[in-house]
Amino acid sequence: MARALQITFLGTSAGVPTRARNVSAVALRFEQRAAVWLFDCGEGTQHQFLRTDLKTSQLSHIFITHLHGDHVYGLAGLLATCGLSGPGQLIRVYGPAGLPDYLEACGRLTQSDFSARVTAIIVSPGVIYEDEEFIVSCQPLRHRVPTFGYRVTEKERAGRFDVERAAALGIPAGPLYGKLKRGERVTLPDGRTFDGADLCTPPEPGRSVVYCTDTMYCETAIALAADADVLIHEATFAGPDEQLARVSLHSTATVAARVAAEARVKQLILTHISPRYTPGSDVDTNDLLREASAIFPDTILAYDFLRIDVPRHIAR
Amino acid sequence: MARALQITFLGTSAGVPTRARNVSAVALRFEQRAAVWLFDCGEGTQHQFLRTDLKTSQLSHIFITHLHGDHVYGLAGLLATCGLSGPGQLIRVYGPAGLPDYLEACGRLTQSDFSARVTAIIVSPGVIYEDEEFIVSCQPLRHRVPTFGYRVTEKERAGRFDVERAAALGIPAGPLYGKLKRGERVTLPDGRTFDGADLCTPPEPGRSVVYCTDTMYCETAIALAADADVLIHEATFAGPDEQLARVSLHSTATVAARVAAEARVKQLILTHISPRYTPGSDVDTNDLLREASAIFPDTILAYDFLRIDVPRHIAR
Repeated sequence: MARALQITFLGTSAGVPTRARNVSAVALRFEQRAAVWLFDCGEGTQHQFLRTDLKTSQLSHIFITHLHGDHVYGLAGLLATCGLSGPGQLIRVYGPAGLPDYLEACGRLTQSDFSARVTAIIVSPGVIYEDEEFIVSCQPLRHRVPTFGYRVTEKERAGRFDVERAAALGIPAGPLYGKLKRGERVTLPDGRTFDGADLCTPPEPGRSVVYCTDTMYCETAIALAADADVLIHEATFAGPDEQLARVSLHSTATVAARVAAEARVKQLILTHISPRYTPGSDVDTNDLLREASAIFPDTILAYDFLRIDVPRHIAR
Repeated sequence: MARALQITFLGTSAGVPTRARNVSAVALRFEQRAAVWLFDCGEGTQHQFLRTDLKTSQLSHIFITHLHGDHVYGLAGLLATCGLSGPGQLIRVYGPAGLPDYLEACGRLTQSDFSARVTAIIVSPGVIYEDEEFIVSCQPLRHRVPTFGYRVTEKERAGRFDVERAAALGIPAGPLYGKLKRGERVTLPDGRTFDGADLCTPPEPGRSVVYCTDTMYCETAIALAADADVLIHEATFAGPDEQLARVSLHSTATVAARVAAEARVKQLILTHISPRYTPGSDVDTNDLLREASAIFPDTILAYDFLRIDVPRHIAR
């Protein structure tokens, strides 16, 4: 059964928007749930929604990494627009201390009371959300202000019991099916024995997506990203500009690749690209990709509206 | 001498952005001064700058009509970006009470200290700014929150003294030129008399641009717009939706046209158009234009990136 988990990059520029890249935002769409989660919300994020088939009316959770403007200045406008689209929509916004104050001040001073529809939650390291299918956890990163990386982990899903095969084998429907579904061994009146595991498809491993921005190299990012299917990591600067990265507490493409390698993730996606790397400049975005790929081959460079279906890795 | 005064519409939608129209912002460019003034600053205004040849680095004055989100949510991002573009730029932001608090809260909670480069000024009715060439005044409008309309009035410019003609007439250069320049009458040693006015080009009347949004019909808008060259007035709703306009304290296209007619302006430009009027809907934006033009023929319907050179009306 396809339960697509889609990442859409809505903004991939660092600090300021450019004509090609908006400031930070990444959407995670749960196709079966008709739900969208958002990671960061730079100015113009609601405008980016308009250019995709993502619906702001499906937005239920927003995770903010930190309170720099290029990650939050789109929040008030997006929430105001969601409020106009229907009274029923409830949105949970997670982020560092200061986030509830920011939303309260924006709402109060612009006569937009978000409080009835929006719950702002201050996160601390560890699990911050859980439902039947997904767990969200966060860890502090290393930046100039309190910043958190987020991990969405899908729970393992039990295999599906093959009813048709059980019937074909002459196993009578009823309580025995329940036992087999739970993976137990049963013996029929005719003496034949069956192992539940043989009549179930293998359990589906859960997928995991990790979002780390803004940060310099840090152990907590590696721990958070351990064995993830997709790591989205900032790569504001190219290696030759390492000094700029150090001063501003950002990562080079090399750092992002090292984190990916040390966390043994399946795929790395670079984002939060400095606007200094444009076509025609001495160093361009392809250089960032080359730099990271030399260390971690399964690397992609994000661009606005890039869509990735998070793959399910059956064999581990 | 061309001293172009250009209006560029950066956002012409009411309440929420659409694919075609952003939320409110209008730029006024003073070509000779290399200066840009901005009226309102909805979310994504800095992005709209990127799609024009207007430079945020030339921005010196911002006038905010009121503190609804679709008029101010782009302010913090724009100011942050201006701060990154150079340390020297000073920006004055004018608006109703609450504006300084809004900027202070945005800056403090997102670690962006605007205070060194930005002065926020609470306006009250009357003249709020004056320099050698321009006067800006404001008047309260009628909306759900305190709202101001703004008028930019260019001062009349003295005519230019025709030096070549004076020389051809044999008038000796020196103190007599000064008198003639001031429009005085002089008598030469040879008995001939000259009137300064005959040797000067006529004074250039100043141009005026008025910006009224959001508001329902009000006398103060008419007084503010009296004899203006260009009146930019909101027309959120079409006549058949008058009830919606009344409830939300907005204007129909009819109201905008009445204000233009009663203020005897030269040209009316409709903006702040409800997103409900799209091509294919029962009432579309052409209907708004038709509705207003029937009352006030010199009407234009604004669209994003519409550019108007404010004409100089010599004969009055």
